[in-house]
Amino acid sequence: METAIDTLFTNALVLCMDDDLNQYESGAVAVKGDSIVAVGPEAELNGAYQARETIDCQGKVLMPGLINAHTHVPMTLLRGLADDLRLDVWLMGYMMPVEREFVSPEFVRLGTQLACAELIKTGVTTFADMYYFEEDVAKATAQAGLRALCAQTVLKFPSPDAETYEDSLAMARDFIQRWKGHELIVPSVAPHAPYTCTDEILRAAAELAVEFDVPLHTHLAETLQERETMRNETGMPVIPYVKKLGLFDAKVLAAHCVHVDLGEMRTLHKAGVGVAHNPTSNLKLASGFAPVSKMRELGINVGIGTDGSASNNDLDMFEEVRLAAILAKGVSEDPTVVPAVEALSMATRLGARALHIGRLTGSLEVGKRADMILVDTSPLHNAPRFQRNVDNAYAQIVYAAKSSDVTDVMVNGKWLMRERVLQTLDEVSLLKQANEYARRIDAFLIEREQSVLSKLIALGGSSEQESFEVQVKVKIQDLETVRDALDNPAIEIIRFKNYHQYDNYFYFEDHKQGRLRFREDDLIDSKGNVASVRSRLTLIGPSREEHFDQDVLLSRSRFLAPAAHTLRFYREYFKPQSEIVIEKKRLRWLVNFKKTEFFVNLDHFEKPDLGSFLEVKSTTWSRKDAKKKALLAAELITLLGASIKDTVTKDYTEIIEEK
Amino acid sequence: METAIDTLFTNALVLCMDDDLNQYESGAVAVKGDSIVAVGPEAELNGAYQARETIDCQGKVLMPGLINAHTHVPMTLLRGLADDLRLDVWLMGYMMPVEREFVSPEFVRLGTQLACAELIKTGVTTFADMYYFEEDVAKATAQAGLRALCAQTVLKFPSPDAETYEDSLAMARDFIQRWKGHELIVPSVAPHAPYTCTDEILRAAAELAVEFDVPLHTHLAETLQERETMRNETGMPVIPYVKKLGLFDAKVLAAHCVHVDLGEMRTLHKAGVGVAHNPTSNLKLASGFAPVSKMRELGINVGIGTDGSASNNDLDMFEEVRLAAILAKGVSEDPTVVPAVEALSMATRLGARALHIGRLTGSLEVGKRADMILVDTSPLHNAPRFQRNVDNAYAQIVYAAKSSDVTDVMVNGKWLMRERVLQTLDEVSLLKQANEYARRIDAFLIEREQSVLSKLIALGGSSEQESFEVQVKVKIQDLETVRDALDNPAIEIIRFKNYHQYDNYFYFEDHKQGRLRFREDDLIDSKGNVASVRSRLTLIGPSREEHFDQDVLLSRSRFLAPAAHTLRFYREYFKPQSEIVIEKKRLRWLVNFKKTEFFVNLDHFEKPDLGSFLEVKSTTWSRKDAKKKALLAAELITLLGASIKDTVTKDYTEIIEEK
Repeated sequence: METAIDTLFTNALVLCMDDDLNQYESGAVAVKGDSIVAVGPEAELNGAYQARETIDCQGKVLMPGLINAHTHVPMTLLRGLADDLRLDVWLMGYMMPVEREFVSPEFVRLGTQLACAELIKTGVTTFADMYYFEEDVAKATAQAGLRALCAQTVLKFPSPDAETYEDSLAMARDFIQRWKGHELIVPSVAPHAPYTCTDEILRAAAELAVEFDVPLHTHLAETLQERETMRNETGMPVIPYVKKLGLFDAKVLAAHCVHVDLGEMRTLHKAGVGVAHNPTSNLKLASGFAPVSKMRELGINVGIGTDGSASNNDLDMFEEVRLAAILAKGVSEDPTVVPAVEALSMATRLGARALHIGRLTGSLEVGKRADMILVDTSPLHNAPRFQRNVDNAYAQIVYAAKSSDVTDVMVNGKWLMRERVLQTLDEVSLLKQANEYARRIDAFLIEREQSVLSKLIALGGSSEQESFEVQVKVKIQDLETVRDALDNPAIEIIRFKNYHQYDNYFYFEDHKQGRLRFREDDLIDSKGNVASVRSRLTLIGPSREEHFDQDVLLSRSRFLAPAAHTLRFYREYFKPQSEIVIEKKRLRWLVNFKKTEFFVNLDHFEKPDLGSFLEVKSTTWSRKDAKKKALLAAELITLLGASIKDTVTKDYTEIIEEK
Repeated sequence: METAIDTLFTNALVLCMDDDLNQYESGAVAVKGDSIVAVGPEAELNGAYQARETIDCQGKVLMPGLINAHTHVPMTLLRGLADDLRLDVWLMGYMMPVEREFVSPEFVRLGTQLACAELIKTGVTTFADMYYFEEDVAKATAQAGLRALCAQTVLKFPSPDAETYEDSLAMARDFIQRWKGHELIVPSVAPHAPYTCTDEILRAAAELAVEFDVPLHTHLAETLQERETMRNETGMPVIPYVKKLGLFDAKVLAAHCVHVDLGEMRTLHKAGVGVAHNPTSNLKLASGFAPVSKMRELGINVGIGTDGSASNNDLDMFEEVRLAAILAKGVSEDPTVVPAVEALSMATRLGARALHIGRLTGSLEVGKRADMILVDTSPLHNAPRFQRNVDNAYAQIVYAAKSSDVTDVMVNGKWLMRERVLQTLDEVSLLKQANEYARRIDAFLIEREQSVLSKLIALGGSSEQESFEVQVKVKIQDLETVRDALDNPAIEIIRFKNYHQYDNYFYFEDHKQGRLRFREDDLIDSKGNVASVRSRLTLIGPSREEHFDQDVLLSRSRFLAPAAHTLRFYREYFKPQSEIVIEKKRLRWLVNFKKTEFFVNLDHFEKPDLGSFLEVKSTTWSRKDAKKKALLAAELITLLGASIKDTVTKDYTEIIEEK
């Protein structure tokens, strides 16, 4: 008697991607409701089932849909926004300012829909996501019909969807409660990474995941810097540290795991942690080379992910699988590691296990959900087809086939694409909306990039602050004379400091932008050692405000703030046209002279060799006050033994430029 | 007055890829005959020309066609034949045996046509080839309408198209004479690589290239092994060595250049050598990581190539450009190196220069040939499009666009593809013919892989040889007794040798295949040092031929030959089911006993610990002779003090198996 089913696929090369790597040609698969009820040779299945719909696969490959084990789908709206930048410049200079400005439930929904359209067209049936407003990601994904692990991000900083991490954790809890048990969505929590979370966040997230028995999605050991910082701060490598915190009490999906040693890999394996390997992202951001073949050798469930489209720049798992296979060979200097069948297993069965949903999907087996794709290997770039051994079929999919060869996609027994036509999403409308967003983001960035000042402000985190200064400067030959003159009873010394200063002045094509100075101040103690280091960023106005008698100047700094990033960061972010480097020793006295505070600086240049200068400076707040202080400054500098006729009205940088 | 032209492209985002990186949007390009006569803003060109055909590009990207700087197009017929193997196993175990059997002018023509179809569909307008029967490659390419540098291979070994290298050089000369000046084909000579050529070949090829002022195409410094062998044999690195031979007197296109140091890179630059970087091939074959960003920094013209489809497995330059861009970042640990515009320049302008045809093609400039493509960036995976800075356009092409976005291709002013339909080739017919070849190659390999013996023979280079042996063996406790007994005047000692022997026995699932023994014989001199090492391969029959009285055996080795490859090679090539490893010391006397030569072996086992054995052996050629020698062997072994009742009838491997 024939069993009634919904769909019978016939005349296919069936790659089951199960543990036994069964292949059937001509093979058949029977689907009833959301599940697979039979897989095998066509001859066996034919006649056994009465199908509502029979699909003649015409010799195409029928296989489980691919699993994108790590991504941030809404970031698809930021694809191509900024490339070829170092991670910090890319993240803090572009991604985060744009996300602060634009990320909203609407942005997230549209980004998710755009990503789902691309994922379906490239043969992905399941993905693991991590972003803000994750419930909106889940809604849009469920509507598109894809399966996903959706993880609500938790950060120690304010994020686009939460002021505090407590808010994020509460959002995650609500989301998990509401969505647990959904037929397509597995809700999850995502403490972003050890270096962006506190220990408390990591613990609380793990407890939440355990409480609801849902997976936990995070980034671990992505960069060398993360590993080194962790080692410096805790004395431990990343993996043992988070294990100690109890993170692995949860079912963890860990993205990257690039900088892990053998002991850490063993820990990951023992703890049942699934790893998402992201080869394109790791290369493009120069994060490093993950020890994939070693992890697989140890038996870790390693899946493959694209990471977000903003760092890839697509969601094409065919490219990613191919890269995972060949990169592992290059890195291990062994062309036999991660053969095609292994890479394809990582993108299917092992990926599902890494997401902790191996019981649901990842292979064509009776009882699993009907998540599958048809791949047409007839296009030119796949030809010819060799059949000598079973590996030929995997090699054709991994090394030759393209995502554009995917013709049909079914998830949970429902069609999402038929003959390359999307069934649940409207491409034209999505493209139109995406390009409208791009226009707005372009405008926002063009606006901020109009001036150095607005680029500075866009970095956020630093306070904007203007400063006015009265200053007079003379070239001197003899430092000792000045030091002696400071003993004058009319001068009260409040504070003395000894600095070694390293200045980098950035110049821009448009001189009206002013100059940006990055200064590293090394405070030198009485023994001549560096006691402390601080860095400050100063945007110096293009011209002086006023020139008083006796060559006392009034100047203005338009922006002054602690430098939160490195010199290299600012250089890559601001892209100055040219740079001037100055290194000098500065003896600095804060003095009280006629009831007015002045800084007296004795500067000796190490680089370039400009000699020594005496500078008297005072901050001011009004033009009237400035005038009064200008007179006092001239008087003080004369008292210090300098001749006012030797006054230098040029900045140090101007002196260097003239040289 | 309007100038009459053939084609005017309008409404495009024109990426000129010239030295100034001009971009025009909306841009236009005017083509007359085979050349570009104008490039610029549409507003400027409109009205200036009277075109036979005006193409509204509808906002697509119009750019120079991509240049595949290194490939072996006929090998497209071998795509997917054998993957995930080490270079030597892949090359000597599969590619070369199949090429010896199948490569012919017909094979080469079909492979070239199949490749051209794929190249055109993926936006390539020029490629650099190296293969056998290169004139047939040139003919098929010219018919397809593509531009190519076609280089006739020269090897020191016999090749599919020539018995000797003199023949190959003569073919190259004829080919160059006939084709020089062709509008599409630049004929060339290809001494394959330093390690596959003699110094004489390299010199002669360079002289030929200089004589006709054509480029020379070769492989240089692809693998670590090549570098190390060169250093051991000549005391020099690869680049200085070939320079000394005069190779760089010619205009050289050098593929790979993976293992080159800074000095070598400087030499390449100074000599004007163009480099073809093949990122996929280098990863897939685990050759290493080419220092691409360093080479570019030095100003070397680095192009990008796919290498042959048998080691890639496609000819997709979009994938290759993207990989070149991201791999360079990973390798140099700097995400800012080889930005998108640099990678795309390598695939266009710089690639053309690497091929020494930069004056002809590689950019959209007035006077250059009209080699160009239209890329539709409207498909989903490209969205959205940012326009904030000029680099956004390059990033979109390099990081997001796919080869399937190429819609139209023109070479030398002629259309090769319109709206994704090939104009000069018939895909359906090519696919049919390619699959027929695949069937024949499959059949050939299936036939040869039926037995270990035929796989051995397929390797070629070794002589097949059968050997019969009479042998008797006893376990002994005391080696000295035997040594003393050899002083017996009835025994004349002809020769004595002291060996340390390392044996690996390969076992196969089908026991009828016999066992394959790889033996390394270390000859030990009188001081106990290793005087020489030789390796031999022996295929041992599955069963004994006969059992004579007194446990003397007649056995047969079905194949005996020097082992040209390493143990590792044979292990990966034969994939044995299991292995037995034996290490023993063998004292071996060749003696004359009653006018018959015997080998007397005193074996002491180091691994596993089996103790010591005395063996008496003699080769034989007939059953009658065997019977006679069996009696003598029993007599001799008794004379040597062993008790014939202690005779062991088992092989050493059988003794080990029982343990």
